[in-house]
Amino acid sequence: MSPDARKIVLSGMRPTGPLHLGNLVGALRNWLRLQDVYQCYYTIVGWHALSSEYMNTKVIKDNEFQVAVDWLSIGLDPAKCVIFRQSEVKEHAELHLILSMITPLPWLERVPTFKEMQQEIQDKDLNTYGFLGYPVLQAADIVIYKADFVPVGEDQAAHLELTREIIRRFNRTIGPIFPEPQTLFTDVPRLAGTDGRKMSKSFGNAIYLKDAPEVIRQKILPMVTDTRRMRRTDPGEPNDCPVFTLHRAFVPQAKRDEIAHGCRTAGIGCRECKQVVIDSLIAELGPYRERRAEFEKNPRLIWDILEDGNAKARRAAQATMDEVRAALGF
Amino acid sequence: MSPDARKIVLSGMRPTGPLHLGNLVGALRNWLRLQDVYQCYYTIVGWHALSSEYMNTKVIKDNEFQVAVDWLSIGLDPAKCVIFRQSEVKEHAELHLILSMITPLPWLERVPTFKEMQQEIQDKDLNTYGFLGYPVLQAADIVIYKADFVPVGEDQAAHLELTREIIRRFNRTIGPIFPEPQTLFTDVPRLAGTDGRKMSKSFGNAIYLKDAPEVIRQKILPMVTDTRRMRRTDPGEPNDCPVFTLHRAFVPQAKRDEIAHGCRTAGIGCRECKQVVIDSLIAELGPYRERRAEFEKNPRLIWDILEDGNAKARRAAQATMDEVRAALGF
Repeated sequence: MSPDARKIVLSGMRPTGPLHLGNLVGALRNWLRLQDVYQCYYTIVGWHALSSEYMNTKVIKDNEFQVAVDWLSIGLDPAKCVIFRQSEVKEHAELHLILSMITPLPWLERVPTFKEMQQEIQDKDLNTYGFLGYPVLQAADIVIYKADFVPVGEDQAAHLELTREIIRRFNRTIGPIFPEPQTLFTDVPRLAGTDGRKMSKSFGNAIYLKDAPEVIRQKILPMVTDTRRMRRTDPGEPNDCPVFTLHRAFVPQAKRDEIAHGCRTAGIGCRECKQVVIDSLIAELGPYRERRAEFEKNPRLIWDILEDGNAKARRAAQATMDEVRAALGF
Repeated sequence: MSPDARKIVLSGMRPTGPLHLGNLVGALRNWLRLQDVYQCYYTIVGWHALSSEYMNTKVIKDNEFQVAVDWLSIGLDPAKCVIFRQSEVKEHAELHLILSMITPLPWLERVPTFKEMQQEIQDKDLNTYGFLGYPVLQAADIVIYKADFVPVGEDQAAHLELTREIIRRFNRTIGPIFPEPQTLFTDVPRLAGTDGRKMSKSFGNAIYLKDAPEVIRQKILPMVTDTRRMRRTDPGEPNDCPVFTLHRAFVPQAKRDEIAHGCRTAGIGCRECKQVVIDSLIAELGPYRERRAEFEKNPRLIWDILEDGNAKARRAAQATMDEVRAALGF
């Protein structure tokens, strides 16, 4: 399947629109490293988006475009990895259907995120057949490329365990075709959004990769810091400060230690401290924004890159499905 | 979609192997009439077979072949209708996945056949995700050809109602693409098998279209008749006689009335009565067996006919999916 002997990695993102610092820190930085070591398939999972956006599907394609622009802007390189749209590779749907036939219902009903997400997302009816089957489609997404590894945060470990169970059952009942994908555990540091809660698009508290310097400044300056620093002369504790979660992700260690010391001794004020992370962010995101501006001038280039990736993914997926159909005797 | 202005009919059968008199009377005779009136798509639904045969998938393809041979032998004509294998038209899987996202779980959980079949088929674990979603795949099978009509027996009316509900929801939330398929109610006369229960492959009581004259005789002669005819001189009641269900389907009205009268007056014996239906069956099935023998000498011809049908079905399905993707904004 792989054009070379490298191990295969699969990962994907739902097309939610422009990406934010949480996506960068929690996934993309890791993906950048992985593309140099493995044969990586990175997919924008439009069909998964349908499970929550079926009342509003027209936004999905533009969101896919935005995700692709961010991926390419931060340095994912189509010469090194395969970047593609899940919904353009029908073989995912075919394998999903086949896996659905061997997946016991109770395995899906016991997935904790199923009930949790239904409760969290109150404005959408997620009590659908497709949403219950999310892990079946995810299993198809992964194994159709015979992925050896899937980078996951700890909160997704249960889903990958379910993928492995489904695949073991397939290998046992239909034929031994698929490797069991292994987790590549990713350290997903907590990143606070502008309101102190976890950074998330749905909380409206995110700093986006495409945010201009002025926007970054306006988002960070009003952030609440460690509440013990009521006055400039009160010492603070960086470990209790939401802003410091940004320092951990974006400010080099030496500078960060200096800031932490300044905070604990009331040697610096919060505004000074914030300026340090603002400067780091502007410096890091600057090149991304420049590349983004180039891509936005030429959207055709993005679609061409995706179409090229779709074709590569399709070839690999078709080769796997030939084996699946042979194992079924079809 | 249709190459002409005729209304579109879809129907399908699970590939269970050679077909029996129940299939002929309950479906195929009707299909023969329909192929002259409508643009008919007749499909062998291999993916549905997976939902019960996932432990034993290697039998499915040969069963598909057997079904195709019977269809062609009784006179379904590839010049008039499209005969194809569902599993060769991936677009069904794609539409199934999309429909899964808009189908509320409770709609599927309340389908009576779901719990019933689980209880009936005790030797197979049908408590799977795919089996629960059977009606979603069925909806995709039907609407992907924009079928106007689906010939159904009364026991399947609930499934078609569910198809219509799913399609109404699609048309409302995604876009008004699909006509709501209407039922073409088929009179499905009860046909007793050799043990007096409903004729069914799974009961082992079926008379097959391919059965030789001697086999037909050996199956019918020992059949239990109306239990009131203990002696030749006891009158009987044809309406209480399992064998007479065969007369209703295979013996012309005039002859049948004569037989019924003879039974009620003890004018004829059961053996004589059985001989009448045996003769009728041998006469009707003879030409089918001859054509079957020709096809079996040349299996390549069957596969070629199916491949041609797959290609025609695929073109129609792809045209529909272009509309679906456009409605999704994909």
